[in-house]
Amino acid sequence: MRFPPISLSLPDWLDEFLSRNEDPLVDNEKRMALAVELSRSNLENGTGGPFGAAIFESGSGRLVAAGVNLVEAQDCSIAHAEMVAIAFAQKTLATYDLGATGLPDHELVTSTEPCAMCLGAIPWSGVRHVVCGARDEDARAIGFDEGHKPSGWADLLEKQGITVVRDVLRESARQVLLDYARRGGVIYNPDRRDE
Amino acid sequence: MRFPPISLSLPDWLDEFLSRNEDPLVDNEKRMALAVELSRSNLENGTGGPFGAAIFESGSGRLVAAGVNLVEAQDCSIAHAEMVAIAFAQKTLATYDLGATGLPDHELVTSTEPCAMCLGAIPWSGVRHVVCGARDEDARAIGFDEGHKPSGWADLLEKQGITVVRDVLRESARQVLLDYARRGGVIYNPDRRDE
Repeated sequence: MRFPPISLSLPDWLDEFLSRNEDPLVDNEKRMALAVELSRSNLENGTGGPFGAAIFESGSGRLVAAGVNLVEAQDCSIAHAEMVAIAFAQKTLATYDLGATGLPDHELVTSTEPCAMCLGAIPWSGVRHVVCGARDEDARAIGFDEGHKPSGWADLLEKQGITVVRDVLRESARQVLLDYARRGGVIYNPDRRDE
Repeated sequence: MRFPPISLSLPDWLDEFLSRNEDPLVDNEKRMALAVELSRSNLENGTGGPFGAAIFESGSGRLVAAGVNLVEAQDCSIAHAEMVAIAFAQKTLATYDLGATGLPDHELVTSTEPCAMCLGAIPWSGVRHVVCGARDEDARAIGFDEGHKPSGWADLLEKQGITVVRDVLRESARQVLLDYARRGGVIYNPDRRDE
């Protein structure tokens, strides 16, 4: 086989991490606290960039899948935390559409607002709600390039029937970004203008 | 393990398909012909949406990886042809950055212009050149929603140091989209306004 299957694996620490956390989580602050703790654990374990995300059933608060940034660990530039959470949720539920008829509503909770790629992935994923922690300017402030997002991106999602809540535990989420920068974490950056 | 690894597999027909094709391919038309044939084979084999993509070394024309839409086949909404090609190229070269120092320039050739997600993924991937077949309005014409792309997206890529060539074999690429629609292929669509 010229191109053997690619495998995408979550970090080894995740099972123990999840066993310490409540499930279900009834409100957005608790869900965001989990996403932020995922981002911090990814930083502290040295398993990737300072970003965490999770997919919940919106109503019950049941955790469907967790994600962290796996770009370096898996040699995969598309393995942002949101993409990883979406992929694992869809695999768990055996559907490419988390908004399919018969399923409960799903919510993406992400420790930092989505970059242009992850933003584009949200409508395809089928999630009906998005909850964000740090702002994209917080990620840009430590050097990550969030890409060209359409202006008014949150309103555009709302017009597609996807609600957006921002700034949930923003300061806690931002602190993880700052800690990552302070420790000299790799800031991979797509801008090629200077090369 | 609560979330076992996810595996992303290319279709079984791909090896035989590639064995019939020249490698390297010296110009953009030949490279696009391969991407369009990938999209047609994905349609004819019933393995997914009518989209194909490939990553080449820009200079030599050597094929680094091929991708087709695997959304339905792999229960994964992010498995668009471009994303699949990028992921397999990065795995093949063991890097998350196809533009890393020491590597030759890489080029993404895609049978249809990228949707908002794939557009956002392009800068992160490290490719230096993008070559497109069908226009995004051709995909929209059969019902696929390409998402909210920033206006002037090709110029924005150019400003990031990524060249864009459009309309290469557009009619051949568009014909695959039309054939897919005519055969009643699934048009999955992220718009939830009417539900």
